[in-house]
Parts: sequence; C-alpha cells; structure tokens
Amino acid sequence: MPKYVVHYFNGKGLGEPIRLLLAYGGEGFEDHRIAGKDWPEFKKNTPFGQMPYIEFDGKTYAQSTSICRYLGNKYGLAGDTPEEALEIDQLVDLFIDFRLKAAAVTYEKDEKLKEQRFEEYSKDVFPEHLERFKNLIEKNNGHFALGKLTWADFYFAGFFASLKFMVRIPDLEKKYPAFQKVLDHVYSIPKVKAYADAVGPTEF
Amino acid sequence: MPKYVVHYFNGKGLGEPIRLLLAYGGEGFEDHRIAGKDWPEFKKNTPFGQMPYIEFDGKTYAQSTSICRYLGNKYGLAGDTPEEALEIDQLVDLFIDFRLKAAAVTYEKDEKLKEQRFEEYSKDVFPEHLERFKNLIEKNNGHFALGKLTWADFYFAGFFASLKFMVRIPDLEKKYPAFQKVLDHVYSIPKVKAYADAVGPTEF
Repeated sequence: MPKYVVHYFNGKGLGEPIRLLLAYGGEGFEDHRIAGKDWPEFKKNTPFGQMPYIEFDGKTYAQSTSICRYLGNKYGLAGDTPEEALEIDQLVDLFIDFRLKAAAVTYEKDEKLKEQRFEEYSKDVFPEHLERFKNLIEKNNGHFALGKLTWADFYFAGFFASLKFMVRIPDLEKKYPAFQKVLDHVYSIPKVKAYADAVGPTEF
Repeated sequence: MPKYVVHYFNGKGLGEPIRLLLAYGGEGFEDHRIAGKDWPEFKKNTPFGQMPYIEFDGKTYAQSTSICRYLGNKYGLAGDTPEEALEIDQLVDLFIDFRLKAAAVTYEKDEKLKEQRFEEYSKDVFPEHLERFKNLIEKNNGHFALGKLTWADFYFAGFFASLKFMVRIPDLEKKYPAFQKVLDHVYSIPKVKAYADAVGPTEF
C-alpha cells in the first residue's frame, strides 16, 4: 500500500501540484480521482468539504498550498534558510492572489457579471500579473523563486493548465516563454515525466 | 534602530498579526503606519504594490501569512514537527478561505451587488465558517490549532477586528465565546499586552 493517498477530481487544478511533488519524492502514492458526479456524496467524508486533501499515517490534511509546502520541506525544495523559505512563501502567496482573482471571475455564477468582469480583468489585472510573474521568472533563471528548483515551480507547473483556462489564453506558454521554462524544469525531471506520461492528457 | 520595520495602514487588518508576533518576539520593531491619503504615493516604492510588508537585514518581504509563518518559526510558535506545522498551515489557509469570502463581499464595488451578496452569505457561508472555527477552537482548548499557542492564534487575534467588521457582528466574541478565548490567550501575554496598550484602540 502506498504511503500517501491524494484525493482530487480527475483533472490538474489544485491537485496536480501535490501529485507532481509526490512523483518527485518517489515514495509512491495512490492517485484517487473522484468523478464530478460522485463528489456530492464523497464530499461528506472529506476533512472540510474540500479537495484536494491527502492521507498519510492515519491522518488527513487539506489545503493544497499547505500540503505542497510540507512536501517541499520533506523533499528539500523549500530553501536552505528560513529567509529562503519566506521568499518562496511570499511569491507563492502573490501567485495565489492572482489565482483567486482569476477564479473569482471564472466561477462567478451570474453569467453577465462574469463576462463583464472577465473583460475588465483582461485589460489590466490579468496582464499586470502575467507580466509580473514573467519578470520574476526571468530574474530567477526560469524558476519561480530563488533562481533554483523549489516547490513553487511545482505549484506553478501543476496549476498552469487551470491558469490558462481561467485567463482564456490557450497558448499562454508561447506568449510568455518564461512560463515554458518553469514547465520544462519540472517536467524534465525523470520521475515527474514518468508520472505525467502515465496519466496522459487531461482537459485541465 | 530596531531590527524590523513593519509597513501598514493605521489599523489592525492584515498588519496586526505581524505586529503582535513581533511584540511577542521582543526584538523590537518600528511600527510604520501609513495614512490612507499617503498610500497612493507610498505604494510606488512597495515590493509588490501591497501592504503589509516587512523590512529586515536590508531586504523586504510582503504577504502577511508568509511573514507570520516566518516569525512563528522564529519564535517557536510553528509546531514541534513538520506535521504539526502542516496542521497549523491548513487551518490558517482554511481561515483565509473564509476571510477572502468575507473580503470579496466587503470590497465589492457595486453597492447593490455587495448588499445582495452580504445578505446571501449571512444566511449560510458566514454562519457555517463561524461555527466551524468555533468547533475547532473548542476542540483545541481555546487555541486555533494543536491545543496550544501557535502563530495561528496571533493571526486570528490580530485579524479579529477586521473579521467582525466584515461579517458585521460587533459582538462576535460574545456570540462565540470560543473566539474570546483565543483573544485572551494572545493578549494576556505581557509583551503583547504592553504593545496593545501602548497603541490604544483603533477603529479596526
């Protein structure tokens, strides 16, 4: 039986960063994917009515960022000093600010408001954030933080398909070659590549 | 010259958890408060156009949660094992989910939509979250996590005035005595109390 179980939908989203880190760690994990139709029932037994969550040593933990930081620490991907860990954390939180703005538009229930906000955000909020991360990644030699491989790269790479979906730019990594560099740094790791190849393409 | 400088508005909000942790740490800090009218100009020189941010050892770091985690680690308030650190992180992230939902309503620019959503959220989202944290805190002996003092208590206590403002329940700590317990645990620490007494009341 593998040490870890990851519970998430059959897509990348917020589950994929965790899966990529576990693939990197190489300890083995059960990749439990829940079909959308089974979610309402499955939800009742989740820690906080949320996915992803992870199970190990008889305990469950939710919240993707927290789990990624934990695994990052475990696998030597969380910086060499407390200040480096802080540098990673602040950049990931900055990315989450962006992710949440994009998500607020994407999951807005009022269709008219959704399209209106999308148009608004596409003019300033999205380009500003994309530009900021492009500059940061260029400064960091194709990495998200610290100029080296950290769990922030896995977070960004794992979530990238969802980001493209939310900002509606299907060739985002072509428009921003810096982003492709982060993807390459993560997916060129043999264990990560083996995992990704085995799963094959998913919609997002 | 104190080791740390904290830059934030003259209110509690997301700056106060950092100030409370620094007061606890006792290394000394400059509490730089920026008046609302000066913010547009000051903003130009901030790391990412955001406050709070902190300065030390010639570097700046933004993002309140990241800074609190860093200080929590430094002052022995981040759990005794990586799994305890994860437990704190997931609960803080869960609280942030709530904070962001409340903030999305509070800072909605469309007044009509704002009041409509506030009414909606007051029926289910807010009570569900408040009930959840009440139960968690009761389970944790009046602490936010792990049944003991952690940086999560400081995060909750520091942000509490803003939370009350956002959910519009001025006597929130009376309706939920569990919340008062967390406040008491933090503000009864002599160094923290001395800081809070010196600052005096602020609006939120």
